[in-house]
Amino acid sequence: MKAFVFHGAGQSAWEEVPDPAIKEPTDAIVRVGTVTICGTDLHILKGDVPEVRPGTVLGHEAVGEIVETGSDVRTVRPDDRVLVSCISACGRCVYCRQGTYGQCRDGGGWILGHLIDGTQAEYVRVPYADLSVHPLPATMDSKDAVLLADIFPTSYEVGVLNGRVRPGDTVVVVGAGPIGLAAIATARLLSPERIVAVDLAAARLEAARKLGADAVADPGETPEQLIADLTDGLGADVVIEAVGVPESFELCTRMVRPGGHVANVGVHGAPATLHLEDLWIKNVTITTGLVDTYSTPTLLRMAAAGRLPTTQLVTHTFPLDHMEEAYDVFAHAADTGALKVVLGGAQHETVAVRAI
Amino acid sequence: MKAFVFHGAGQSAWEEVPDPAIKEPTDAIVRVGTVTICGTDLHILKGDVPEVRPGTVLGHEAVGEIVETGSDVRTVRPDDRVLVSCISACGRCVYCRQGTYGQCRDGGGWILGHLIDGTQAEYVRVPYADLSVHPLPATMDSKDAVLLADIFPTSYEVGVLNGRVRPGDTVVVVGAGPIGLAAIATARLLSPERIVAVDLAAARLEAARKLGADAVADPGETPEQLIADLTDGLGADVVIEAVGVPESFELCTRMVRPGGHVANVGVHGAPATLHLEDLWIKNVTITTGLVDTYSTPTLLRMAAAGRLPTTQLVTHTFPLDHMEEAYDVFAHAADTGALKVVLGGAQHETVAVRAI
Repeated sequence: MKAFVFHGAGQSAWEEVPDPAIKEPTDAIVRVGTVTICGTDLHILKGDVPEVRPGTVLGHEAVGEIVETGSDVRTVRPDDRVLVSCISACGRCVYCRQGTYGQCRDGGGWILGHLIDGTQAEYVRVPYADLSVHPLPATMDSKDAVLLADIFPTSYEVGVLNGRVRPGDTVVVVGAGPIGLAAIATARLLSPERIVAVDLAAARLEAARKLGADAVADPGETPEQLIADLTDGLGADVVIEAVGVPESFELCTRMVRPGGHVANVGVHGAPATLHLEDLWIKNVTITTGLVDTYSTPTLLRMAAAGRLPTTQLVTHTFPLDHMEEAYDVFAHAADTGALKVVLGGAQHETVAVRAI
Repeated sequence: MKAFVFHGAGQSAWEEVPDPAIKEPTDAIVRVGTVTICGTDLHILKGDVPEVRPGTVLGHEAVGEIVETGSDVRTVRPDDRVLVSCISACGRCVYCRQGTYGQCRDGGGWILGHLIDGTQAEYVRVPYADLSVHPLPATMDSKDAVLLADIFPTSYEVGVLNGRVRPGDTVVVVGAGPIGLAAIATARLLSPERIVAVDLAAARLEAARKLGADAVADPGETPEQLIADLTDGLGADVVIEAVGVPESFELCTRMVRPGGHVANVGVHGAPATLHLEDLWIKNVTITTGLVDTYSTPTLLRMAAAGRLPTTQLVTHTFPLDHMEEAYDVFAHAADTGALKVVLGGAQHETVAVRAI
């Protein structure tokens, strides 16, 4: 089959590799129809994620069709159309038993396109299939569904729910890339008083407004001043970090009110400074986290009902074998205006129609 | 009257000052019988808390007798024996309405011995008396009660409750001074599996064992290794920071398990490094906070029932006018073995007996 293979920092190719095969009775093989590229994949290509060995197929998000299952798989069977989640889960370890699947201690967690071959391929082996894929309603478009493999549950669980967004809150989202935009969209579900988007790119702030941001910092206005003005000097109830650099994290801690929450979603490669000399007295809660995907079934129901603006995030589509071009467009988002790029799609529409 | 007055970094004296008087109808004047010294007072004396103006009477913990109340005070009256809380609360602002009295926006919060004259005096004016003093049961010893003005609610709310200690948890307390010891004592109320104390001083570790610590790091063993050994490599469920320096905070973030809590109680004067490059993926929750004292009525009931080991923390007692000597003993705890030093006491015992 063809797959997108990482060959060490700066090197990668869409190339021929062996087809995956069932290794464990809990595995499933999925024929990939629709796939997307994550900001984390770009980090891997830069060499920022040293656990990824050269030779690994990248990708941790997909929609596809089950073609084979191991003998212990009970909940899906060949021909089922499924979402392949970015998180695999054994379901039995101390963390899985608490629903914190992202921390699975028995070979699950974020493994696809990280510790084992991933989804940017014609076929993918998915370990622990019962807890790691989600059957899809026949009517759900694959481009909508694939955004629920990672970015929507990540933004919702690690940003909105960890940040404890409540009705009436002032919520600030720092970084209006795909994760920040999905945070804005899912924060709206909890009826905050206002959502303020902070970004340096005007195009992203415009996207943020379309997805539900009520305010953005104008040029020449510091985000801190805007938030102070909006909140009678109190600060924001919840600040969601969706960038992943020390400066953006530290900005978040300057905008949060006493008693508020800073929810870090960004993937960081360097330490930040935590100004405890200011924060010790402020009753601030700071959370970090990898997504657990406990919310994925709920988000799938909501997306199926048309209650999540998934499609608005998809700016570019490509055939599956245009992977290198899609990476190029996604990596140069400042020039191309890319938010999410989605590959494939037509294959599933066939499956979906057949299922009806 | 006599009072302990701060005269700028390194300068202070027990000296004659004017008696306090009612300024607002919500004030009460309290005749101080029993008082203690807080680690924060030592920070002030060093000049670490610049908001404290020279000429301020220090102290934010006391037991005493109401001698006069303003016209709006409803819940206490002259001759009532009360605990003077470290937190004053207007009861009406946005924060007080949520029970987060420490962040009171209308002249409350931590003001005694900070922004206005405090309790290390023969008399003290207490603003917002209705919400800032607590009537005491006649049978409660003043030395027990005065530890509930600050350190017990601080350790319990900011350490144990913010840290979400639950039955069966592994709890680590870094710093076995009075705050850390009170955290150990109140963590026990939630039936953790084990409490591990970390400190450099053998005498404090011995006190920690007496107050309920199950384990302490032996010399030559790193705390990180001890916690890993005790938890099958997972890390602690809750780590409570009770020191207030960057190194101790960073140690806490290395001992917490994925999904665990770091509750900062220490008063910090410098920033710490937050290793987000390790923590972003770990589902860690970090909390900071000033005490709100919402738990003080509960803790008073528990202390009255003999369910808090308050007295075990009191190593030295002095007459009220031996304030300078008491500060000296407390400031040199490494030599004197001081945990909490308490001044006064006899006066209340009289009041208490009379009340019976």
